Amino acid sequence: MDLTKITSPSFLKKMNKMELESLAREIRSFLIEKCSITGGHIGPNLGVVELTIALHKAFNSPKDKFLWDVGHQAYVHKILTGRASQFDSLRQYKGLSGFPKRSESEHDEWETGHSSTSLSAAMGMAIARDIKKENNYVVPIIGDGALTGGMALEALNHIGHEKTNMIVILNDNEMSIAPNVGALHNILGRLRTAKEYSKAKEELESLMKKIPVLGGKVASTAERVKDSLKYLVVSGVFFEEMGFKYLGPIDGHDFEALDKTLEYAKKVKGPVIVHVITKKGKGYKPAEEDTVGTWHGTGPYKMETGAFVKSNAKGPAWSSLVSESVRKLMRDDQRIVAITPAMPVGSKMEGIQREFPNRFFDVGIAEQHATTMAAGIATQGMKPFLAIYSTFLQRAYDQVLHDIARQNLNVFIGIDRAGLVGADGETHQGVFDIAFLRHIPNIVLMMPKDENEGQHMVKTAIEYNDGPIALRYPRGNGYGVPMDEEMKTIPIGSWEVLREGQDAAILTFGTTIPMALEAAEELSEKGINVKVVNARFIKPLDEAMLHDLMSKKMPILTIEEGVLQGGFGSAVLEFATDNDYRDIEIDRIGIPDQFVEQGSVDLLLEEVHITKDETVARIEQMLKSNKTIGTKMV
Amino acid sequence: MDLTKITSPSFLKKMNKMELESLAREIRSFLIEKCSITGGHIGPNLGVVELTIALHKAFNSPKDKFLWDVGHQAYVHKILTGRASQFDSLRQYKGLSGFPKRSESEHDEWETGHSSTSLSAAMGMAIARDIKKENNYVVPIIGDGALTGGMALEALNHIGHEKTNMIVILNDNEMSIAPNVGALHNILGRLRTAKEYSKAKEELESLMKKIPVLGGKVASTAERVKDSLKYLVVSGVFFEEMGFKYLGPIDGHDFEALDKTLEYAKKVKGPVIVHVITKKGKGYKPAEEDTVGTWHGTGPYKMETGAFVKSNAKGPAWSSLVSESVRKLMRDDQRIVAITPAMPVGSKMEGIQREFPNRFFDVGIAEQHATTMAAGIATQGMKPFLAIYSTFLQRAYDQVLHDIARQNLNVFIGIDRAGLVGADGETHQGVFDIAFLRHIPNIVLMMPKDENEGQHMVKTAIEYNDGPIALRYPRGNGYGVPMDEEMKTIPIGSWEVLREGQDAAILTFGTTIPMALEAAEELSEKGINVKVVNARFIKPLDEAMLHDLMSKKMPILTIEEGVLQGGFGSAVLEFATDNDYRDIEIDRIGIPDQFVEQGSVDLLLEEVHITKDETVARIEQMLKSNKTIGTKMV
Repeated sequence: MDLTKITSPSFLKKMNKMELESLAREIRSFLIEKCSITGGHIGPNLGVVELTIALHKAFNSPKDKFLWDVGHQAYVHKILTGRASQFDSLRQYKGLSGFPKRSESEHDEWETGHSSTSLSAAMGMAIARDIKKENNYVVPIIGDGALTGGMALEALNHIGHEKTNMIVILNDNEMSIAPNVGALHNILGRLRTAKEYSKAKEELESLMKKIPVLGGKVASTAERVKDSLKYLVVSGVFFEEMGFKYLGPIDGHDFEALDKTLEYAKKVKGPVIVHVITKKGKGYKPAEEDTVGTWHGTGPYKMETGAFVKSNAKGPAWSSLVSESVRKLMRDDQRIVAITPAMPVGSKMEGIQREFPNRFFDVGIAEQHATTMAAGIATQGMKPFLAIYSTFLQRAYDQVLHDIARQNLNVFIGIDRAGLVGADGETHQGVFDIAFLRHIPNIVLMMPKDENEGQHMVKTAIEYNDGPIALRYPRGNGYGVPMDEEMKTIPIGSWEVLREGQDAAILTFGTTIPMALEAAEELSEKGINVKVVNARFIKPLDEAMLHDLMSKKMPILTIEEGVLQGGFGSAVLEFATDNDYRDIEIDRIGIPDQFVEQGSVDLLLEEVHITKDETVARIEQMLKSNKTIGTKMV
Repeated sequence: MDLTKITSPSFLKKMNKMELESLAREIRSFLIEKCSITGGHIGPNLGVVELTIALHKAFNSPKDKFLWDVGHQAYVHKILTGRASQFDSLRQYKGLSGFPKRSESEHDEWETGHSSTSLSAAMGMAIARDIKKENNYVVPIIGDGALTGGMALEALNHIGHEKTNMIVILNDNEMSIAPNVGALHNILGRLRTAKEYSKAKEELESLMKKIPVLGGKVASTAERVKDSLKYLVVSGVFFEEMGFKYLGPIDGHDFEALDKTLEYAKKVKGPVIVHVITKKGKGYKPAEEDTVGTWHGTGPYKMETGAFVKSNAKGPAWSSLVSESVRKLMRDDQRIVAITPAMPVGSKMEGIQREFPNRFFDVGIAEQHATTMAAGIATQGMKPFLAIYSTFLQRAYDQVLHDIARQNLNVFIGIDRAGLVGADGETHQGVFDIAFLRHIPNIVLMMPKDENEGQHMVKTAIEYNDGPIALRYPRGNGYGVPMDEEMKTIPIGSWEVLREGQDAAILTFGTTIPMALEAAEELSEKGINVKVVNARFIKPLDEAMLHDLMSKKMPILTIEEGVLQGGFGSAVLEFATDNDYRDIEIDRIGIPDQFVEQGSVDLLLEEVHITKDETVARIEQMLKSNKTIGTKMV
């Protein structure tokens, strides 16, 4: 069938098994082809083709509510709800989102991106339904990885207590992004390997009936043993203890099993967990054979071979540069322990993991635990390196503040994917970390101009023993600059003048430095000489340099790839005010008070006016108004 | 014995049961007396007298590490580690902290205040120990309430997986601050009520041996049934599923049981949970009889009767004002649902709970879940009122940003205890919320000048349907101002001039308004006329008023009881810069870049220079420098 002709999932109701299987095949081909061009989360989506079809067949969306946890596995859902024709624009500027999006479809009830939110949101929807005395199914679909996030466990605990009607689909593919860790994962493993589940259960029941009644006090014990049936090894005792009815495990690629189980689940009163086993990458050999998570989310690839289209990056991936620099230092510094919340691949920590298995910890999707665990390690005189994506560090804001910074512990936080990230869109942009870290006492925050300075900052962070220190680094690759043989430390709070100039100063850091230098070049052709400063320490500021600039009344433009409110530019404004510099020009370029959607980073920078042209214009504008004031004062 | 003579807990080693019991009695009398004068967390501490003594007898602190979760139950620990003589200064300015404090004692390895951090930190300490090949016990002590916090569950999941050596003391007193909720709590309840635990277990084992071997395939089933012993109803199956050895439940007031179990726990390889049942308030009748949490933490009381020393507050408690205003509106507005993470008492929501049990949810200590659940409710056209203390809202930063604000959902966040809170100290000060919320797009943030405006702001928040709106209110009570009969809405982003003046303007909000008015009065006696503005909307700013003030080049002083970095004053600086107002004086008063310790709020305000004198001095200073510039320009 022509997938682009689908307008609603209602056509599934009449389909038989053969038709469903044929549809599944078509969807798989469609996904493999489309994603080979646009890139995307192909692995997770190939794994849920049958499951998504079965869900849309069993339930009536949008009356019934699907909540896709994390959300990158909603491509099939998008196809079945009339969006197949938009897949050419997947994850592109103004195109189809790679995640559920309320503005795209009434079938997208809940937007996601960060993990582990679906159960809490589902509880909210179920509460609203029950108060309004409405009648619908609320169906969160959550992976085994996302289930270990603290808020999902908080939600399980609450839902099981309230006994709210809800059908939780546990999509268990044995790995989230990297192979999963955690006791819960082990529990799922035991459930999975329990062969002939139903049969064993029946046998046990019949056996229990044969237990002789021994009379007297032992009889009551025997009764207890019968009660304890529900705790037998092959049952979902963990979930039943939590107050859920457990169904499964079932084969998530078997339409009959799915159909039977979902129909049964619809009849259960109270919360149900349907444990579905799926295979990530199912139906596409290169993705099926992936064991480390390479095919979780990809860029474009050659459909026939699964070979990834090579990027033309000159320098090393930033994540790799930082993690490998840490690894080098781990050889001589026994204090260093590396920690990741489920991102050993993304944060390129496989090298550390291989070389120092005893000093490497992947704690699963658990940013809060990772952060406070790092604090605990630091209390014992060791030096944890905690790598977390900027956007996910939001989850650990309180842990950074209350546990690390308040106790002033020596934790090195690697803020990976800082700044705009592109195709993953507004849930993943790393643009808030400066604003949410800068007001936390005791913290040092820095960002390097290139990968050589990056390695020196790693050394700086490891050697720093006066409290927490955080290093921001962007998504993508460095520039291929020459690397010093020896890593060295950089004085805390020291900025660097990259270009001299007397008419105005640009203060910026990280990814916006090349653009600032180009703007300065263009301005010099117009006779305006701009100083460009590598403001590599966002906190503390280089106060000596600021005093110098401000006492000379140099107009200052700050540029940052982060939110303007409370950001680096605001720190410069605060400095000026606190130090009584009143009559100087300061202007700021950065991200305005809005969420920034998906698209290539270049397009997004255009959208928020972080560009060379804007920089040139702002400098010219400042100098113009400055002269006006000068004229007045004469 | 004289408790103030204790210098180290080592004297406990030689004590017999009678001596220990006598010591426990003395400690109880000491606590009841001391807390009757200073106030404090008397209930939790009376509950752990025997447990703390037993822990210090069984382990060797500080070689062995105790981590007190939340930490308000560490008074007995402080007495046993040589700090009894400091109890007269408990929770007072520069006095003994009400929580563990690394600077106080080598026996305080981990500082707390916020809940549920101990397991993660303990894991960190255990990791450090094992890497360093040291040999000590790591012993987190966590309450049943704190256990439901997401990060504690994340930690359980990780510890159970890694099988790290650790002895977790689960201090189960059947209520945390309010009676507990959650499936985990129900599990603990089942464990508690399992009578004659060991005996039943023995009986079962003997019964299992009698199961006839039925031969063939049924035999293997019988083997499974034997294996399944560990899943019997009276065992700690939940914890064993999570990878822990479960010991208990034991009576936390029985020295023999404690001694026996702790000694056994020390021999176990891998992580152990010791489930200890204690009685909050044990040994002090008024506290023992408390069923709602009144005796969790108290002010001073009459020791003989347990009557609380009445405060001389004139107005209603702020929490009560807000919750009761919401309750009134709930009568006519069926959309409103009230949510608290474990603070029905603190946030004075008992009235709502009684009158609208179906629209009230206490989710336990689970700020993340509470916040995203509110978002879920809002997606269904309902209006959640989510009351969270400012300091605990830090835990839900990502949920506010990613789930509520990014989807622009109509959630009303009540930020309770905003500003300095006093005796609870640096872990509880509500001074970061402006800085961490202000940079989040779509959010409205406001604070009332008095309780009458407070009720109007509640109405404003409920009627507002353009996205999230947050209302800050302080700890303590209102002023006793007359209350309007009818609640009314206040235009979003509108400020109010409280006093006219031409020489300068003070922009402030909430608790600092009376001080600003007094300063203006004092200045007027010196011939300086200061405008005082109730800047009740922190976001959005009243742009019309700012344009008016700034175009008149009026010197502006901002005052806030919150951090200066990225705070309200910075918002005013940003506005000036973004709107090209360069040659005006702006100065800011607020909390500098440091954590603020415990003490009465008045003393703390002195310490951080948020005072009338400072206000007067800053205005005078501004006008002086302003005149200098004026002179130059003539």
